Amino acid sequence: MSFDDWLAEQAAKRRDAGLERSLVSRAPDDDLVDLAGNDYLGLSRDSRVVAAASGAAHRWGAGAGASRLVTGTLGVHDQLEAALAVWVGTEAALVHSTGYHANLSAVTALADADTLIVSDAHVHASLVDACRLARGRVQVVPHLGVAEVEEALSERTESRALVITESIFSVLGDAAPLTELADVCARHGAVLVVDEAHGLGVAGDGGRGLVNATGLAGRPDVVVTLTLSKALGAQGGAVLASQAVVDHLVNRARPFIYDTGLAPAAAGAAHAALDVITLEPALVQRVNTVATALADTVGVDRPAGAVLSVPMPGPTEAVAAQAACAAEGIRVGCFRPPSVPDGISRLRLTASAGISDLDLARACDVLKTVLP
Amino acid sequence: MSFDDWLAEQAAKRRDAGLERSLVSRAPDDDLVDLAGNDYLGLSRDSRVVAAASGAAHRWGAGAGASRLVTGTLGVHDQLEAALAVWVGTEAALVHSTGYHANLSAVTALADADTLIVSDAHVHASLVDACRLARGRVQVVPHLGVAEVEEALSERTESRALVITESIFSVLGDAAPLTELADVCARHGAVLVVDEAHGLGVAGDGGRGLVNATGLAGRPDVVVTLTLSKALGAQGGAVLASQAVVDHLVNRARPFIYDTGLAPAAAGAAHAALDVITLEPALVQRVNTVATALADTVGVDRPAGAVLSVPMPGPTEAVAAQAACAAEGIRVGCFRPPSVPDGISRLRLTASAGISDLDLARACDVLKTVLP
Repeated sequence: MSFDDWLAEQAAKRRDAGLERSLVSRAPDDDLVDLAGNDYLGLSRDSRVVAAASGAAHRWGAGAGASRLVTGTLGVHDQLEAALAVWVGTEAALVHSTGYHANLSAVTALADADTLIVSDAHVHASLVDACRLARGRVQVVPHLGVAEVEEALSERTESRALVITESIFSVLGDAAPLTELADVCARHGAVLVVDEAHGLGVAGDGGRGLVNATGLAGRPDVVVTLTLSKALGAQGGAVLASQAVVDHLVNRARPFIYDTGLAPAAAGAAHAALDVITLEPALVQRVNTVATALADTVGVDRPAGAVLSVPMPGPTEAVAAQAACAAEGIRVGCFRPPSVPDGISRLRLTASAGISDLDLARACDVLKTVLP
Repeated sequence: MSFDDWLAEQAAKRRDAGLERSLVSRAPDDDLVDLAGNDYLGLSRDSRVVAAASGAAHRWGAGAGASRLVTGTLGVHDQLEAALAVWVGTEAALVHSTGYHANLSAVTALADADTLIVSDAHVHASLVDACRLARGRVQVVPHLGVAEVEEALSERTESRALVITESIFSVLGDAAPLTELADVCARHGAVLVVDEAHGLGVAGDGGRGLVNATGLAGRPDVVVTLTLSKALGAQGGAVLASQAVVDHLVNRARPFIYDTGLAPAAAGAAHAALDVITLEPALVQRVNTVATALADTVGVDRPAGAVLSVPMPGPTEAVAAQAACAAEGIRVGCFRPPSVPDGISRLRLTASAGISDLDLARACDVLKTVLP
């Protein structure tokens, strides 16, 4: 089959399954109420954050110019790393150019061939890819299954083990049993890797996330990954852990070593966002208020963070409901296979502190009409 | 072995092998002549590029706020994609948040389980990881070996095949035999994937890279990947190909789908850099002049692009030579295992159009003294 024919066949399969996706550009300012993005605190448009992005570009340039180990480590990275570590409560931090990279780095560098990797079935694609890239054997356990994690760890033949989870899961928005997982890891000599992408800025004291809230931050056998592109409104990711782990990643994590350093504008913006959250903890309360109002409106459990999942009968119904919301000025997410861990199509709503009371009321009115 | 003990053992192994690496921050402005970075045209500090980064952050925010398929596709992405495609001569382009992601996307989405992936032995870590992530069987062939590529393709049992190369290789700086590889691919129904990370802005007519220079741009069976963080002075990457390939990636490439869109500042900066190169083709001539002067000074072949490789007796000697250069105000790169494809430690020099005649003369004087 020629390449053209193969591409056409793949496209036809997507169309037939109702799973065709295409990119739709949004305007810099539109009247839609955004319940789809991940700008949980509305900080990507905050004037202080934008000014910091601009200031960092002027001071350091539009790009880092090289990989971090060559000449691409800048003061703006050092400062952001120090601030992230202090905020969450770890000894050290290592900034990456995306959250995806942070996950690839942490898992591939910390797992060797003699490591069992035990992963929750619902982890993000970046962690799934990280497991595929890593040298160790991977065992996927049922979502939130602590007993299954313990069974996998106790039956392993490998001397080392990593347990992979998210603090708040990206699609369903539920929280992991972090305390129980950490206990199991400690009993079985395993390292716990927790992705705080959807916890940071939203959950825990002052938005410090669930690893901090459960007292696990700073434990040498707990590794936190996070993104700078959601609550912090910028781009990039980080691994927060002990200095020994960070030193190890600097030497061994290929997605860190062979990647250009994070652009100064993104690093500066993320740092400014952190400062804003510290100054204005009410932002964190606000996103939770919005999330609660949305959950009560659509009739789902109040979420652990800012992500709400509304199951739909199928992909066609999900797309139709999304379009009906859009027609009324409300932008909601629609997740269909293969973007869902359980094959169930759903609307995905995200709360943001940037939504006004007026817009929230309008969104709730529309959701009541559109949803079954 | 406890996690702490394992980390300590790994650190001791690095120290004993003389391969310990650590991050060293650079100041926003120092007097060093930079022969180590990848800012080939000096555009990361260009006032027009920096102003565009700042302008895009003000117009669109510090971050894209969501993945590209959710609400993270912005006008600044559309415009950059159109400009990149026109510049290189392909039908379409898809911007990613790093060049690493662009490579992971292209290879994993275009190779299925029935695809043989034939890769040059010297390709970048991101392509190696892409091959590991992809579903197809991977066969690594000797560096620049066209006959070996043909043999692998003709003996394959898979119905489909990808051939992976860089246009100009990242460590040795030599060029791939693109015309020959494309011919072999065409004869054997294979797709050629070419990473232009070190070709773009440096090689070919007006810096359009070697795929353009060899008349291969726009061929439906040739896929170009590139980075926005080297000659274009920003951050991010892109896949340039037919519209059918881009549509396929939008639907299937996990490192694209599950990643926040490129930060507006980086997209705006890269677009401005493209405009500068178009306005000032002399920049491309300048980087080649600098590269030639450096090659003649250190006694290596004139490079295909801006990367020069100077073999050293061992990692210790390489580090010592790098330190001696730094003491004289010249920053050079030092690549040691595992960052080298052949186990040979080396100094790596990169030319930049941003280096003045005075600094170039100073650098050449120092290199003559320091190198054997």
